Amino acid sequence: MALTPRSRKPEQPSRISAGSVYLVGAGPGDPDLLTVKALRLLQSAQVILHDDLVPKAILALASPATEIVNVGKRCGTKTITQEDINALMIVHASAGKAVVRLKSGDPLIFGRAAEEIAALAAADVPYEIVPGITAAFAAAAAIGCSLTDRSSASNVIFSTGHHASSHNQSPLPALEDATRVVYMPGRDLHLLAQEWLAEGLPHDFPCAVVSHAAQPGQQIRCTTLAALGDAAPTAAPSLLIAGWAVRDIAAKHHEAATGVSATA
Amino acid sequence: MALTPRSRKPEQPSRISAGSVYLVGAGPGDPDLLTVKALRLLQSAQVILHDDLVPKAILALASPATEIVNVGKRCGTKTITQEDINALMIVHASAGKAVVRLKSGDPLIFGRAAEEIAALAAADVPYEIVPGITAAFAAAAAIGCSLTDRSSASNVIFSTGHHASSHNQSPLPALEDATRVVYMPGRDLHLLAQEWLAEGLPHDFPCAVVSHAAQPGQQIRCTTLAALGDAAPTAAPSLLIAGWAVRDIAAKHHEAATGVSATA
Repeated sequence: MALTPRSRKPEQPSRISAGSVYLVGAGPGDPDLLTVKALRLLQSAQVILHDDLVPKAILALASPATEIVNVGKRCGTKTITQEDINALMIVHASAGKAVVRLKSGDPLIFGRAAEEIAALAAADVPYEIVPGITAAFAAAAAIGCSLTDRSSASNVIFSTGHHASSHNQSPLPALEDATRVVYMPGRDLHLLAQEWLAEGLPHDFPCAVVSHAAQPGQQIRCTTLAALGDAAPTAAPSLLIAGWAVRDIAAKHHEAATGVSATA
Repeated sequence: MALTPRSRKPEQPSRISAGSVYLVGAGPGDPDLLTVKALRLLQSAQVILHDDLVPKAILALASPATEIVNVGKRCGTKTITQEDINALMIVHASAGKAVVRLKSGDPLIFGRAAEEIAALAAADVPYEIVPGITAAFAAAAAIGCSLTDRSSASNVIFSTGHHASSHNQSPLPALEDATRVVYMPGRDLHLLAQEWLAEGLPHDFPCAVVSHAAQPGQQIRCTTLAALGDAAPTAAPSLLIAGWAVRDIAAKHHEAATGVSATA
């Protein structure tokens, strides 16, 4: 049976609507990787509520008349709670403003969108979700490797540093034919590597750490699972891609670093 | 150690370069969900080699002078092989053309990009990868549900119909705290459901099937794992999202269909 969508969509889908909230993905940070729709919404929003990770180059695309509010919860100071953000969206929309809630990457992964959607629905505020390029794809593009490969990687698993380890209730299994992408793997890659090795992943499982993907200052470090903990720390935000799908880039790195082919 | 990227990038990153290949994600089908960069590349390419799933509305954005070639391998007739596609990219780039290899969604997931990248690298053709919105995020936006949820879904697993079942060498485990996204789940959802139930996922595990996400004719069907096989087939391309993260939309659907709250 076809479903009546839960969201009460704004009435003019092709233009921004007053009194509506748009949960918009800002992509990985490069303004060129905004969607056409996200760009148009940014340029016509009356209020933008954005995360810390959205760079100035993207916020600069908004109209000078737009009220831009950083509702980031990072930087140590948790002065803004999730409840505050929910309330801000609802207050501005209820006042007839066209509100863009701008989240880095895609709004529907690792971004507490579930709570924001529930709050908007409960308040009967019209909302629409506009996808964005999530960091995993920007990082994969940066290293030039497919996340899947017909011969070696048939699944892709996205998790966060907090949930990638076996401290979690349901640890991920040691599937060698999956590419693992860990958002915000944190600084203790040694611990993560030890856990994955203990779960049965091999020592030479290829790993790439990409920080600031698709942004100025992008850094790429390639290594193996055994040596992951020894890699110099990279600047946050970073992302770990591990799996046989990235073996070529890891081997190339090894060759560049040592002058010896990894497959020799 | 920082990595020398494997790809030899075109010399003018902000403009299209003659003699280069751009592996570009076309997104889910809505021209509004192209990235700004993808749109610019489409408008300035001399040759576009596209998959079957890229709709006319997107191809219409190319310049009238552009040579547009459908290199899709679907529709039963496998007249074009992967090797043919690789050769076409290399031949056009070597002739000094600016080539866009346009793939639906994001180029780096379930799209045989690994083989195309390897061919370009072997031929020493400059290439660049431009991410796109993959169908999973368009489908999640369509149903208005986050793929992750702090209380119930800390991982997301992407697979294809071909690999989602336990016929695969390494079956996925019955992780209840993961959202499973199956691209092209195929018509035999009954078999898939039986396998997941046998692996230990619960009968009431919420499921949503979205076909033609972000395109005209978009359809959404919500059900449970136990009833997944009974759902009327949806038109391809479709995508299955299963997990507690989509329980609200599934419950809402149940309520709409029966007049009874699923939680009553």
